[in-house]
Amino acid sequence: MTKSALQIARAAYQPKLPQALKGAVVAKEGEPTQSVADQEAIKALFPNTYGMPLIQFVEGEAPAFPAINVGVILSGGQAPGGHNVISGLFDGIKKLNADSKLYGFILGPGGLVDHNYKELTAEIIDEYRNTGGFDIIGSGRTKLEKEEQFEKGYEIIKELGIKALVIIGGDDSNTNACVLAEYYAAKNYGVQVIGCPKTIDGDLKNEMIETSFGFDTACKTYAEVIGNIQRDCNSARKYWHFIKLMGRSASHIALECALQVQPNICIVSEEVEAKEMSLDDVVTYIAQVIADRAADGNNFGTVLIPEGLIEFIPAMKRLIAELNDFLAHNGEEFAMVKKSQQREYIIKHLSAENSAIYASLPEGVARQLSLDRDPHGNVQVSLIETEKLLSEMVATKLAAWKEEGKYNGKFGAQHHFFGYEGRCAAPSNFDADYCYSLGYTASMLIANGKTGYMSSVRNTTAPAAEWIAGGVPITMMMNMERRHGEMKPVIQKALVKLDGAPFKKFAANREAWAKETAYVYPGPIQYFGPTEVCDEPTKTLQLEQAK
Amino acid sequence: MTKSALQIARAAYQPKLPQALKGAVVAKEGEPTQSVADQEAIKALFPNTYGMPLIQFVEGEAPAFPAINVGVILSGGQAPGGHNVISGLFDGIKKLNADSKLYGFILGPGGLVDHNYKELTAEIIDEYRNTGGFDIIGSGRTKLEKEEQFEKGYEIIKELGIKALVIIGGDDSNTNACVLAEYYAAKNYGVQVIGCPKTIDGDLKNEMIETSFGFDTACKTYAEVIGNIQRDCNSARKYWHFIKLMGRSASHIALECALQVQPNICIVSEEVEAKEMSLDDVVTYIAQVIADRAADGNNFGTVLIPEGLIEFIPAMKRLIAELNDFLAHNGEEFAMVKKSQQREYIIKHLSAENSAIYASLPEGVARQLSLDRDPHGNVQVSLIETEKLLSEMVATKLAAWKEEGKYNGKFGAQHHFFGYEGRCAAPSNFDADYCYSLGYTASMLIANGKTGYMSSVRNTTAPAAEWIAGGVPITMMMNMERRHGEMKPVIQKALVKLDGAPFKKFAANREAWAKETAYVYPGPIQYFGPTEVCDEPTKTLQLEQAK
Repeated sequence: MTKSALQIARAAYQPKLPQALKGAVVAKEGEPTQSVADQEAIKALFPNTYGMPLIQFVEGEAPAFPAINVGVILSGGQAPGGHNVISGLFDGIKKLNADSKLYGFILGPGGLVDHNYKELTAEIIDEYRNTGGFDIIGSGRTKLEKEEQFEKGYEIIKELGIKALVIIGGDDSNTNACVLAEYYAAKNYGVQVIGCPKTIDGDLKNEMIETSFGFDTACKTYAEVIGNIQRDCNSARKYWHFIKLMGRSASHIALECALQVQPNICIVSEEVEAKEMSLDDVVTYIAQVIADRAADGNNFGTVLIPEGLIEFIPAMKRLIAELNDFLAHNGEEFAMVKKSQQREYIIKHLSAENSAIYASLPEGVARQLSLDRDPHGNVQVSLIETEKLLSEMVATKLAAWKEEGKYNGKFGAQHHFFGYEGRCAAPSNFDADYCYSLGYTASMLIANGKTGYMSSVRNTTAPAAEWIAGGVPITMMMNMERRHGEMKPVIQKALVKLDGAPFKKFAANREAWAKETAYVYPGPIQYFGPTEVCDEPTKTLQLEQAK
Repeated sequence: MTKSALQIARAAYQPKLPQALKGAVVAKEGEPTQSVADQEAIKALFPNTYGMPLIQFVEGEAPAFPAINVGVILSGGQAPGGHNVISGLFDGIKKLNADSKLYGFILGPGGLVDHNYKELTAEIIDEYRNTGGFDIIGSGRTKLEKEEQFEKGYEIIKELGIKALVIIGGDDSNTNACVLAEYYAAKNYGVQVIGCPKTIDGDLKNEMIETSFGFDTACKTYAEVIGNIQRDCNSARKYWHFIKLMGRSASHIALECALQVQPNICIVSEEVEAKEMSLDDVVTYIAQVIADRAADGNNFGTVLIPEGLIEFIPAMKRLIAELNDFLAHNGEEFAMVKKSQQREYIIKHLSAENSAIYASLPEGVARQLSLDRDPHGNVQVSLIETEKLLSEMVATKLAAWKEEGKYNGKFGAQHHFFGYEGRCAAPSNFDADYCYSLGYTASMLIANGKTGYMSSVRNTTAPAAEWIAGGVPITMMMNMERRHGEMKPVIQKALVKLDGAPFKKFAANREAWAKETAYVYPGPIQYFGPTEVCDEPTKTLQLEQAK
């Protein structure tokens, strides 16, 4: 296998561990815990895994430990550092006992159900240390939710003599990990289940989980290319760059990138929703910044847009809901309408409010909303190229303002969408260290007989030696939420808090950033330089953890 | 001004210089030179700057040098390292005499004509060392071609007491630099003009100029994100990524990236043209690789596409020519045709060959070809989203093959276009060193009274200390070519040579890369690590210079 010079050099990196994990480890247990809300309901659903104490690992003397077999699963979208969770887990169980074995289930949770697995030997693990991607065993989106899946999984678990499963995933996957832990505990199967917090979106975090892994590397990779675009923008001085960033359910990525690069504009979906902004409000806001900069002779700039924006605009949600409903009931008639008349047909049949919004949309987007529907007949919001939608509507508004004499600039736009560019980047030092520690900590939770815990590494803005490793009962992060019409126990998703330090820092500076050209150029992730260049955590984490 | 940690750390980098430039320098002159072709014609056009000798700088004793004023211009598209050319030039003239001054003309050659300039002081220069972008003085696309421009420029040159101009640009800008040098020499104005080879496209190179600056950094930046996408692709195993890369007139960038990342497919425009491949041939080739991989269970992969592809397909060039001609003569009638009938109208009126090609194009592209025309009424080839055009046509072909039982895979596509992400990246060590040396060498050419020369740094695959610095008469690289209906003296553009080492390496491996998943992950540019990670030149350069 051909490898780049950096792949070869990076393979030798030894991730930094918390001091407490470097030698023998003992578990220090805290007080019993409660779920963040709906305590009675959660307790009733998780009688065996509710109320367990927080765990912190400290230096101590540990007894000799028998060999164990452990299974590991990568669940959902890729995030930088997954391979290091696995190598930390591997090194941890090998340190407990050199005869321990690690099995990887192939292509996600489906691999457990389908009995598709491979043993991860030292030779395989060494090939993947400090690399990006989930390709060591692949990932998948099968949800582990049903008893028959749990039982199917238990068959192979028994066959392989697996004592514990580690599930690396986002909020949903960790919720399911806890359901599985509860099920195996209730059945007395003697199988532990441990979760690890993964997602580039950054929306799996709370009082006990400071950040999900991959967020650091993905944001730094996006910030690198956005910074490069900003430098281009400031050199060519003729384009507005509309840059959409992955992350449908929260705007953490866009906000973090904004804090890193200081763009002229960053839209934060959570704010749009809280202020009940309409699409026109968002367009007007962008157009106004562009007009103000044009008045200073600056016909260029950058706009960061979170992928999920459309779904956070209350009026757009109402439009989409009515469209779904209308097309479900009038699909046959609609199919008979001539293509050139479909737009008018829809405008005529929607309610006044939604009709006006629909009429304001550029033709391409309007067509997409009425035609490209998923197998259930629903509009596919994720296909909308929000960056182009906004720039087209901004262009229209600026043209109108020009007629009115309110704007006298030149507007040219370029469009970008960054997502796949960062999900599988090689982990930054932070993610390499954090992930390795999470995996190593998981092995210690297993050794201590824990189940229904999430591996937790805290104090992450301090040097790695001072990080605090332990475990958090997953039930502690749960509340009851309506999903698909049913109340379900789920881990609360962390959206951007408008009263949180990262947003407040952004809000306090955005007017200056809009008007001035205050671009920062983060450059590519560095692995070998001074610590302030190589080891700095995200701005989000630094601001959130600042005392 | 807020700066990132890397910006601050990188500012301290001291670019490596060729040994010969480290102390006092003398010029060693070679034999008189000839242009690469059309010697008589070029000689007649450049009586004062033709036939000059090659220059090589060697260590020696240099006399004391009076203070000089120098002007510098950035011309055309941004390329990483422009600021280092300027800082090398600044340090060079300051070393000759501490009272020398450097003036930067603002926003490109237009700044000379419009007398828009600023003095570049040590304080300004220090802000921009080792940074990307051209924002120190901006760039522009005004062409210096007319006598009145030359005279206008001379006014400000006289006023500022400028002895020499350094023009940093691509092949056209360097051609114009030589025309200007000849003009000032013929007029005895005593103003020297020196060129520097800049372009990320890599198409300004020849026997004497090994590479243009910026190509190294831009390709490494693209290869970083393509590598990340490949790792994602190989983890998710469900998408084909169609990745278009900047570079309209040559495929060096796509080829270099292919050599770095080993994708499943890379299209090289020069090969498409040489083999007279049709659009359908290109589509069939891609679809066949996809079908072959699907047969192995691999429904994922990567396709690299040079931005200029469409213009290299002979049949597409013929179609576009006929369309331009047809719409020029029938524009009024066409404007009357209903939108829904325009496609049929064009199909009916074109020649049989072109009509068939037009009919095979996806609707969006067909519409674009007939509607989006430039101010001269010509089709705007650059607006075509070639990556989407190809993936749509591939999808159509695969669907047909599925009907015929020749293909049984799943095809999902993602699209990317990388250009602005790399043009203004902070220069790699190679570009930082190379550019600084080019700028420093320019100052030595000035000191030695040279004009009509391009700054040249060779032996660039060796350590920087062994690089050979000197000057090449620009006329030496010229031939006569038809431009806008007239024969003009121009620097030969370097396209990808199908018998050159880089293409041959690619061609020898592409079948294996198509079938296997042989991805390489270059990772982000590193500035502080081991030399094999930080200082390696491009694969193109290594292969071309290999003895």
